[in-house]
Amino acid sequence: MKAITLYAGKLGLNAARPEPVRKPGEVLVEIEQAGICETDLQLAQGYMGFEGILGHEFVGIASEGKFSGKRVVGEINCACRDCDTCLAGRPTHCPHRTVVGIDRHDGAFAPRLAIPETNLHEVPDSLETDAAVFVEPLAAAFQIVDQVPIALGDRVAILGDGRLGFLSAQVLRLSTENVTVFGKHPSKLGRFETFAKTIQIESPDEDFVSEGLFDVVVDCTGSTTGLPMAIRLARPRGTIVLKTTVANEHQQSLAAIVIHELRVVGSRCGPFDKALRALAEGAIDVSGLVTHRFSLEQVDVAFKAAVSPDAFKVVFEIG
Amino acid sequence: MKAITLYAGKLGLNAARPEPVRKPGEVLVEIEQAGICETDLQLAQGYMGFEGILGHEFVGIASEGKFSGKRVVGEINCACRDCDTCLAGRPTHCPHRTVVGIDRHDGAFAPRLAIPETNLHEVPDSLETDAAVFVEPLAAAFQIVDQVPIALGDRVAILGDGRLGFLSAQVLRLSTENVTVFGKHPSKLGRFETFAKTIQIESPDEDFVSEGLFDVVVDCTGSTTGLPMAIRLARPRGTIVLKTTVANEHQQSLAAIVIHELRVVGSRCGPFDKALRALAEGAIDVSGLVTHRFSLEQVDVAFKAAVSPDAFKVVFEIG
Repeated sequence: MKAITLYAGKLGLNAARPEPVRKPGEVLVEIEQAGICETDLQLAQGYMGFEGILGHEFVGIASEGKFSGKRVVGEINCACRDCDTCLAGRPTHCPHRTVVGIDRHDGAFAPRLAIPETNLHEVPDSLETDAAVFVEPLAAAFQIVDQVPIALGDRVAILGDGRLGFLSAQVLRLSTENVTVFGKHPSKLGRFETFAKTIQIESPDEDFVSEGLFDVVVDCTGSTTGLPMAIRLARPRGTIVLKTTVANEHQQSLAAIVIHELRVVGSRCGPFDKALRALAEGAIDVSGLVTHRFSLEQVDVAFKAAVSPDAFKVVFEIG
Repeated sequence: MKAITLYAGKLGLNAARPEPVRKPGEVLVEIEQAGICETDLQLAQGYMGFEGILGHEFVGIASEGKFSGKRVVGEINCACRDCDTCLAGRPTHCPHRTVVGIDRHDGAFAPRLAIPETNLHEVPDSLETDAAVFVEPLAAAFQIVDQVPIALGDRVAILGDGRLGFLSAQVLRLSTENVTVFGKHPSKLGRFETFAKTIQIESPDEDFVSEGLFDVVVDCTGSTTGLPMAIRLARPRGTIVLKTTVANEHQQSLAAIVIHELRVVGSRCGPFDKALRALAEGAIDVSGLVTHRFSLEQVDVAFKAAVSPDAFKVVFEIG
């Protein structure tokens, strides 16, 4: 089959990739659509040293098993379900796990994918594929409210006006009306204006009138500038959620975390069921956010489009 | 009066310091005993740019007000009690606060101190002054369990075998029997052996069999080496408590905080009432921990003793 693969730092279309081989508990899924995520861009730059088929945000049709013939989305952590970490209820942290399209598990930029059946969730008929493709990143946004209780009226700041910032802002808006988004791009900030306050910044070092005022600050910047800005914006005993992995080294004193007794919470993959329900019920609106569509053969132009400022979600139409 | 003062980086005895002047709500306390703390050593090195009379761990006799003639200890944050932060229940974070012996408020290395009456707590007659002088640092240790729920059986690591590590380990031992202390000094680790497991380390970079195993890791190292070691020791979704301020810059990637969804909690001053009760009930044992006693005139030798490896608590006997 054809597939978009990454080997030795080289991204490209492989026209003759062998068919996926199912491990015990895995089923085949025929991929319909798969989205390009920030992590894919980082993987293509060498992050985590991944080799194989890329792609972890997908919608497909299960070929077999209990979801046979149904439209599905899939959780990306393939856990052993048997170790102490799994049995303690933390399968997304299983030390034996592989991760679809990210860590030793072929991904979804291909016509077929092998994935544990237990990872799959059926997509309700009412939900368009263009919305279902957002379940994986939206679940990551819902992880914030699973980890940090948000009270009605809590003042929440989102740092970063990109895709994850947008989904996180929508999720947090379900809990509190006081959401403020800090971003650099007027065009991107415009998307938030119907439901959040937006503040355009030139530099993360500038003075903000709102310093020390936020109960919760969510860093979606993907940059080392996010944490120091979050520390300045959080109130004493406030919470900072680190939503994006930053491979670069931070270089700063963390004394303010102690002095202001801040909580810094790392946040990664989240609950697919909550994301699916919110989309199905219309609580979260992702209509119009698939801005670019490509075939697998258009891999180069697709990855270029994914970094362009006017793109929101770039997808491959596969099935 | 005589007092130990710090001005322009120079620590010394001032034989003719003016008497303290009470602000509204403040009372005078005749100091009996005052301890030297790690923070005092840092202030003497220029941390926070403090100038004035040092000393914030004290036991004294109130000269007036509702505690008149009683033995008292005192909370160190002098809050306005009227701003949004105070009214939200966080007076230790009042932006208008001064801090006794640390920030724009004369301290306790003197025969008399002016302090808000609301900061004072009466010391039960059954409690020796040598124990009561530990209330302030012990309250800081109790702050850990106020911020982080510890379940019976939780695996807790304490990094650092110094004074704060010792008090923190004793407090955490009240909640769980699984306390492990990592330290560099065999002589200091010996103090923990009756109630905790101890592991002597040569370097924070060495490999530990216990990596990724601890539910809670408390960094009492006062060093930038503490956080990376804590990140390695904490289990996925575990909690790291930063108990010591580190003025130096950290230089490291914080990606592991996101990947393992860790919680990093800054922790500072704590509840005096819980510390007093624990000492009065014998739940915490500090007998024999005052290892050196000096007069105010012996300031130089006292501060030298406080950094010697055989010292635990060095006090000034004043009253």
